[in-house]
Amino acid sequence: MRATVKDVARRAGVSPKTVSNVMNGIIPVSGATRTKVEQAILELDYVPNLSARGLRNGRSGVIALALPDLGTPYSAEIAHHIVEVAHEQGWIVQIEETGSDPQREHELMVRARSNLIDGLILNPVVLDESAVQVGVALPPVVLLGEVTQRLADRVFVDSFGAARDMTLALAQSGRRRIAVLGTTQGRGSAAAIQRTRGYEEALEILGIERDESLLIPCEKWTPQTAADALTAYLDSHPLPEALFCFTDSMAIGALSVLWKRGLRIPEDIAVAGFDDIADGRYAVPSLTTVSFDKRAIASEALRLLTERMVDRGHEQRVVSVDYNIVERDSTRT
Amino acid sequence: MRATVKDVARRAGVSPKTVSNVMNGIIPVSGATRTKVEQAILELDYVPNLSARGLRNGRSGVIALALPDLGTPYSAEIAHHIVEVAHEQGWIVQIEETGSDPQREHELMVRARSNLIDGLILNPVVLDESAVQVGVALPPVVLLGEVTQRLADRVFVDSFGAARDMTLALAQSGRRRIAVLGTTQGRGSAAAIQRTRGYEEALEILGIERDESLLIPCEKWTPQTAADALTAYLDSHPLPEALFCFTDSMAIGALSVLWKRGLRIPEDIAVAGFDDIADGRYAVPSLTTVSFDKRAIASEALRLLTERMVDRGHEQRVVSVDYNIVERDSTRT
Repeated sequence: MRATVKDVARRAGVSPKTVSNVMNGIIPVSGATRTKVEQAILELDYVPNLSARGLRNGRSGVIALALPDLGTPYSAEIAHHIVEVAHEQGWIVQIEETGSDPQREHELMVRARSNLIDGLILNPVVLDESAVQVGVALPPVVLLGEVTQRLADRVFVDSFGAARDMTLALAQSGRRRIAVLGTTQGRGSAAAIQRTRGYEEALEILGIERDESLLIPCEKWTPQTAADALTAYLDSHPLPEALFCFTDSMAIGALSVLWKRGLRIPEDIAVAGFDDIADGRYAVPSLTTVSFDKRAIASEALRLLTERMVDRGHEQRVVSVDYNIVERDSTRT
Repeated sequence: MRATVKDVARRAGVSPKTVSNVMNGIIPVSGATRTKVEQAILELDYVPNLSARGLRNGRSGVIALALPDLGTPYSAEIAHHIVEVAHEQGWIVQIEETGSDPQREHELMVRARSNLIDGLILNPVVLDESAVQVGVALPPVVLLGEVTQRLADRVFVDSFGAARDMTLALAQSGRRRIAVLGTTQGRGSAAAIQRTRGYEEALEILGIERDESLLIPCEKWTPQTAADALTAYLDSHPLPEALFCFTDSMAIGALSVLWKRGLRIPEDIAVAGFDDIADGRYAVPSLTTVSFDKRAIASEALRLLTERMVDRGHEQRVVSVDYNIVERDSTRT
């Protein structure tokens, strides 16, 4: 006969509650007690039937986290914080990758219906209305970052304001020819659109005329694509006084190109990024960036998601997480 | 009454098979058909009951992936490849973080019994016998990386051989005073032990006497801890001719310290890492490293895991993934 939690408790000489504390690992249990319980679990080959439990109360205890590419530093840091906060709250986290592909984002929204999950946290790149239509019958969804439409509860950093403030900061040392790297043409991500607008707003505040030739497109936001785009740009344009990259990852690719050309940073050209990823702090020189509390993004996303699980009917909520400009050696003169 | 897949197929005018192709997203479906099916799903509020299906055939379709810290570039790249390969094969991936904490690795092995998973891929740091004992009644487990004991099926890169070859490569330009950064004292990770031994083996081959003062301990392998350890070291020791960091992340922290001291790389000191993370390619200068195929690690891990699901009884398997030394500007003179 299959062992129950009571059998394990009896064999270990502890209460069933203690057995479940050892199993779920949330409430600390002394080492000696843990060993006794684990030994009893082993001897009785006890396997709790969580799957049946999940069906009984209609909850799986699982949330899904969908990101464009887990391998990029920004996504990895966000995933780390969400997994950490979710585990603290007793959630299991499933990972999905969308590869920044609108079709895969769309498919994910459809497939989310078929998975045994209680909620979905999605960092979309180009999510649009077609996904929303499917989304009405989805489990609770929280979106991370900028989106162009009101689709669901959302946690974001004000890309427009942050890009404006970074551009203003770059102009403080008298720099006027400020280029941006990462603008997109055609159907771009909401973040690209907002950051470009913030940059343009700053130019207006500064009384600097917008110069189309200082907008350097880069569809994919990776070090490699940024390095390629900047190399091509520098071959046919004069050197700007400052370069604001729309992500730190792009800035790291850009720094590598500038160094290889023997340019001094920030003397010849100042460089700034966005996201405050760990690698930016150790870049040569250390990278000026837009910083924000990634742990707060995770906590707020989990809070919105669990509130939505309890009450599907309330109005959509949007939480903005504060940012600040962190000045490091790449712009400090 | 609850809608079935047949109801959806009828409403969309397609076969039930086509509906399931749209839902699972693996076999491509034309855009027009997809739209019809999605519309029907929406109108009928169809939700397939995968959870009941999972209980019927005894499989959940879910594997767990446990890593020390998803936020570090190496873990993130490995996770990306595993999620990608797993999704291609139709698996859902749960993420667990162990925080490099032996207690949490241990807890995870216990808790894996209670989760609805078909298998576990674990990148352990200090897994030991106590976990194995618990492990005998676990779902199938595949370990990634070096471990000190034969605990389960395993995919790894030969740390000993790679560290030996990197040390030999650093010595080729006549460098003799080669320091290593990342040795551990007391209970270290198996990777630290193997890489230190490989370094010592190379010294023996080269006829260089081992100099204890060239082993720079660094318990945690992060840019910050590496920067701190190297700063303290340089304050009290002469500059080595080469610095072999046991991970690229540590090397990135080290480069930042060396630059701040005005040292030229590789002229004053050559620097090398291990892992070939994306950021190393864009480091200043680009980082010499031990490279290996991370996608192959993911494929092999999934292969071993699924084979173990089918046959729990066969002998433990160990798959070694090839490495090679990639020479970049940080050592090229």
